[in-house]
Amino acid sequence: MNYNHFFQDAIEQLHDEKRYRVFADIERVTGTFPRALMHNNGASREITIWCSNDYLGMGHHKDVIAALCETAQKTGAGAGGTRNISGNNHHLVQLEAELADLHGKEAGLVFSSGFVSNEATISTIARLLPDCLILSDELNHASMIEGVRRSGAEKKIFRHNDLSHLESLLQAAGAERAKLIVFESIYSMDGDIAPIGEIAGLAEKYNALTYIDEVHAVGMYGPRGGGITDRDTLSHRMDIIEGTLGKAFGGMGGYITGSQAIIDAVRSYAPGFIFTTALPPSVAAAATAAIRHLKNSQSERGLQQRNAQRTKDVLVKAGLPVMPTQTHIVPILVGDPDLCKQATDRLLEKHGIYIQPINYPTVPRGTERLRITPTPFHGDLLIDELREALLETWQALGIAFTEAKKPAVVETTRIIPLTVSKAGG
Amino acid sequence: MNYNHFFQDAIEQLHDEKRYRVFADIERVTGTFPRALMHNNGASREITIWCSNDYLGMGHHKDVIAALCETAQKTGAGAGGTRNISGNNHHLVQLEAELADLHGKEAGLVFSSGFVSNEATISTIARLLPDCLILSDELNHASMIEGVRRSGAEKKIFRHNDLSHLESLLQAAGAERAKLIVFESIYSMDGDIAPIGEIAGLAEKYNALTYIDEVHAVGMYGPRGGGITDRDTLSHRMDIIEGTLGKAFGGMGGYITGSQAIIDAVRSYAPGFIFTTALPPSVAAAATAAIRHLKNSQSERGLQQRNAQRTKDVLVKAGLPVMPTQTHIVPILVGDPDLCKQATDRLLEKHGIYIQPINYPTVPRGTERLRITPTPFHGDLLIDELREALLETWQALGIAFTEAKKPAVVETTRIIPLTVSKAGG
Ligand SMILES: Cc1ncc(COP(=O)(O)O)c(C=O)c1O
Ligand SMILES: Cc1ncc(COP(=O)(O)O)c(C=O)c1O
Repeated sequence: MNYNHFFQDAIEQLHDEKRYRVFADIERVTGTFPRALMHNNGASREITIWCSNDYLGMGHHKDVIAALCETAQKTGAGAGGTRNISGNNHHLVQLEAELADLHGKEAGLVFSSGFVSNEATISTIARLLPDCLILSDELNHASMIEGVRRSGAEKKIFRHNDLSHLESLLQAAGAERAKLIVFESIYSMDGDIAPIGEIAGLAEKYNALTYIDEVHAVGMYGPRGGGITDRDTLSHRMDIIEGTLGKAFGGMGGYITGSQAIIDAVRSYAPGFIFTTALPPSVAAAATAAIRHLKNSQSERGLQQRNAQRTKDVLVKAGLPVMPTQTHIVPILVGDPDLCKQATDRLLEKHGIYIQPINYPTVPRGTERLRITPTPFHGDLLIDELREALLETWQALGIAFTEAKKPAVVETTRIIPLTVSKAGG
Repeated sequence: MNYNHFFQDAIEQLHDEKRYRVFADIERVTGTFPRALMHNNGASREITIWCSNDYLGMGHHKDVIAALCETAQKTGAGAGGTRNISGNNHHLVQLEAELADLHGKEAGLVFSSGFVSNEATISTIARLLPDCLILSDELNHASMIEGVRRSGAEKKIFRHNDLSHLESLLQAAGAERAKLIVFESIYSMDGDIAPIGEIAGLAEKYNALTYIDEVHAVGMYGPRGGGITDRDTLSHRMDIIEGTLGKAFGGMGGYITGSQAIIDAVRSYAPGFIFTTALPPSVAAAATAAIRHLKNSQSERGLQQRNAQRTKDVLVKAGLPVMPTQTHIVPILVGDPDLCKQATDRLLEKHGIYIQPINYPTVPRGTERLRITPTPFHGDLLIDELREALLETWQALGIAFTEAKKPAVVETTRIIPLTVSKAGG
């Protein structure tokens, strides 16, 4: 038994499939976002980041950084324990109240990450309900899939955003059986939005619990930044709203909000919540500052939406294969992993533009893409620069422009087996 | 189907069993550790923390806080993405090199927490090896148990620290089968240490991989703070050394170190690593500062060991039922969940001493205890104060002193079914 050989083989396979990942070594510089430094073999150069999930640049907001530093100066760098054993801290308690208020719920609960909040909550809720059936959208994120698996509960996968499929599964289960519907508001690789109101209607009709992941929407949609459910006044119709502190809120951590009873049960039973060090007070305070700011300020959301729209318009007009999307996410189709990697390498080397190639398993094979996320700081000049760079790259590598675009590309993402569709990493 | 009722029942059950957890609302104050503020219904009071896992007080070290704040000022509050998609940052790359060096390994990999590092690594390694058999100590932490479960691999539980039991299981599996031995260096609730050298010997004899959790030892043992494996020069005999940045290093995050091939495979295949926002650069920089300091400075370790020893000596002499331990952890037996809670309530209210009661399922029923963790900052005066407070509490509540202590208490922890023994939360 030569162990190393198995690990090396696993890595070789990734090389063979051209999906071995090399992490870019990035150093962000406050005040210059989306500019940053990229390090490589001791050298460093300036680049423009076009694929950040710090969607609104809040990670560089002065109030957020000030809250982080002031709190660290006052209370130290870490929590010093699990939530139960000396690690609960006042800043976390305040953050949870802030989150409950954001979504109009009785209570909130913070986890190490959005990944952990999904995994821990879904698995715990399904275990606390007798014979629970989980109904899960086929394009759900890896962290939700982990939660479904870990629960040990029976699951049915419904076709992406397909209401009649969902309804037939609910109907088959019957009103008396415990049912948990698990889905996202915004699917981050295609940028489409779930029919939340209709899913709520079905849940009410068939008496199911609803769990919505608003990770890519919190901070960014709705008059107070409560996500798509805030924008469409649907928060009260969802049982559990989950989100992250690591994207539009610019920091780190994840959370759920819901009724007192649900939150208390997850708090009391989820191993992924209980048996781990609490979030540092400084990280909690930074998140609270970002949430408070975005509850009141519309300017970041407004500018971001404007820039996202302009990016789409400009790139579409240039004949680039922008995949249709209802949100701030701008995916551009390449359709081949090797070309996708070559395109991003060229964008970086020749144009100083950093966009990570998105390949299988994050998206289905054949839909390899660039995923562009304009922020409030990606103004017209940068957008024009991006267009020129993409045009040059598309031409140099012979990637298809719109005319040659295969039809219904977005549709093909729906037939991939669930287990490999794990958007977001 | 009334959903709420299931959640309420689950919570009622905890109340009935006297193990419903109420989190203390703590505000640490730099410069005054182990003193802190405790908030309650709008009021706050000063307390002394005696159960922190910021074992060396590094969370309040000026170099650590300075690294955190300077990095946040320079680079922002968050990473802005997953490791693969724009979230890899220079401070994380440096931290991983620092960790590899700390344990004398080829490479390191950082996760959101120690919990996630255990869950993600154990499950991924066992899945990459064909027909892997996991041999797991019966007192392993909840996060390791999650990893074992999630792997789907066959597992055999060996009796706590029992070499002959482990050997018989290895022998039965045969040299040709892939085998992963999973254990901890220090078990945090009893404070005992695994026979690491002997386990390494068995692994070599039967050709098994070894995975050691050094969460409660890193920073604290060994001339460079590399844990018990550093102290006993055993690092090179372990395949994977796992640790946390959230205890002696005073921050947040978890990690593994090992060969290039193993680390690269986990990096490339573990969902819990891939599909989540990276650790903020500031948090990484704070950890690096703490690790570097503890690589060179012996004073924190020295003082902590001295204070832990003195605490034990003083409390033993006072007739308090200190459970025998080889490490810095000082558990005091109460043996009843209600009494345990009453004792800690009284210590807090009457004496301003905060020690969290440790009840089932963190420890087996009947071994409920106070778990005391002296730090370099718990000097003689505080130790004497603690003794007086414990004596008063023991007398007032009629808890048994040493004379009445049931024999072989530590032994009883070994027969608890694995699934409920989840030390640490
Ligand atoms: C839909 C979705 N949910 C959850 C997560 C995990 O959130 P976090 O990064 O906070 O772990 C992600 C991506 O990271 C995601 O895309
Ligand atoms: C043995 C052990 N491993 C892992 C962990 C998890 O580490 P972290 O707190 O960084 O998640 C803990 C406790 O928290 C622990 O006691």
